Amino acid sequence: MSRSILTVPVQRVEGESSTPIQDLLAVEEPLEIRVCDKSVSLTMRTPGHDRELAIGFLFTEGILSHPGQIQDVHSSKNSVTVSLKPEVEVDFERLERHFYTSSSCGVCGKASIEALHMQGCPVLPRESPVVATAVIHELPATLRSGQRVFDRTGGLHGAALFDAQGDLLLAREDVGRHNAVDKVIGTELLAEHIPLHDALLLVSGRASFELTQKALMAGIPILAAVGAPSSLAVETARRFNMTLLGFVRDGRFNIYSGASRIQ
Amino acid sequence: MSRSILTVPVQRVEGESSTPIQDLLAVEEPLEIRVCDKSVSLTMRTPGHDRELAIGFLFTEGILSHPGQIQDVHSSKNSVTVSLKPEVEVDFERLERHFYTSSSCGVCGKASIEALHMQGCPVLPRESPVVATAVIHELPATLRSGQRVFDRTGGLHGAALFDAQGDLLLAREDVGRHNAVDKVIGTELLAEHIPLHDALLLVSGRASFELTQKALMAGIPILAAVGAPSSLAVETARRFNMTLLGFVRDGRFNIYSGASRIQ
Repeated sequence: MSRSILTVPVQRVEGESSTPIQDLLAVEEPLEIRVCDKSVSLTMRTPGHDRELAIGFLFTEGILSHPGQIQDVHSSKNSVTVSLKPEVEVDFERLERHFYTSSSCGVCGKASIEALHMQGCPVLPRESPVVATAVIHELPATLRSGQRVFDRTGGLHGAALFDAQGDLLLAREDVGRHNAVDKVIGTELLAEHIPLHDALLLVSGRASFELTQKALMAGIPILAAVGAPSSLAVETARRFNMTLLGFVRDGRFNIYSGASRIQ
Repeated sequence: MSRSILTVPVQRVEGESSTPIQDLLAVEEPLEIRVCDKSVSLTMRTPGHDRELAIGFLFTEGILSHPGQIQDVHSSKNSVTVSLKPEVEVDFERLERHFYTSSSCGVCGKASIEALHMQGCPVLPRESPVVATAVIHELPATLRSGQRVFDRTGGLHGAALFDAQGDLLLAREDVGRHNAVDKVIGTELLAEHIPLHDALLLVSGRASFELTQKALMAGIPILAAVGAPSSLAVETARRFNMTLLGFVRDGRFNIYSGASRIQ
């Protein structure tokens, strides 16, 4: 916990009065992710679960496809180096290439979705779990209780994995919302639980294209967001047969895609 | 407005009952930013003010330093091409190089801050404006009234520029919070208003290192966030003599740095 929180002296202003207090900040520090000897990413993250973050990032970006490809993971202060088995061929250019263009429409949302097909992102099976409405209504309170640093700093995004009965499997936090999701997915990949065809992922903020893509890569059939989804998140969810829920809070939510999984 | 919002049919669930409704989504589409013939960025953004977004991005990344360097800006559906005058030399590798390492500590927050000095990010002058507490308390309501798409979709981040009297100069929205800030700064760069030594920037979410860096590049002396700042945002603000305010809402706020500018 100590690496995730920093205490600083601040002035608290209420109305016209000002009081010196000690405030707790969420820590933000750079993390370098290396594959073998090559630096592939530098992300601003909250320290903690760095190995899982690196593994989750490499998996959701399509660099790594299963845990058996990993030879060794070495983590130092702000750097994680993932060594792969000699027989694994890595397409490093994938990270630099842009998949968002197509010959028919150039750069557009449709091409971004097509790119997911090309990356091998699977369409979800229709027979995946059905979840009761009452279970969905309970999710935000459970995420909140699992977000220990947020409660103290107000500064972190949360991502939590649940089973179809609404039991919390795993919760992670980070200043970057994509990092919180990568930490969850990286943990599950190392535990050989992917694809997560029976799980539900709740995110504390909005649902973007990027978060939808990450959930899809992990085979998660239900993505629920406390905030609003974007147009491209909804279009992607519909194309890949994913259930997408938004504004999950205060005893209500919207179903944007895949209503058959909600009972 | 129409390119920023999309209407979709959804199911709204309240308690156990479900009703079909039409919901408004914030549009998210890729934008390619090109300098001359080179693609330098692909970002997911909300369409609208694309030229300003591209110019603001290039400026805050240190590629462009003043509007006189621009020969022409050409914008098509999801692409902006910025042509520079022939005499302008561009360091494209700057976008690929990582400035976050130093010989003394490797990858760390301290090195990230040092990198800003190396990029030519100026320390702010001490004599910049003093703002009344009452002005700060009014900012969130003004931002909200300027955020037209957010009100309808709940899905956008806002960034707004104010003068020292609290008058709104400019408000922009985007699914990406860094994009909203780039749209504001790009507009001001094209109007030859940078450095913005008399202005105040309010952001609707949290204050990260990246947003602090962008405000610094534009010479903005006061950054106010409706949400929490990160540890690195606070450290950066203190180093560059910037006033950083967090949790600006409900008649209160915290001063994390530069209290002398708040009266």
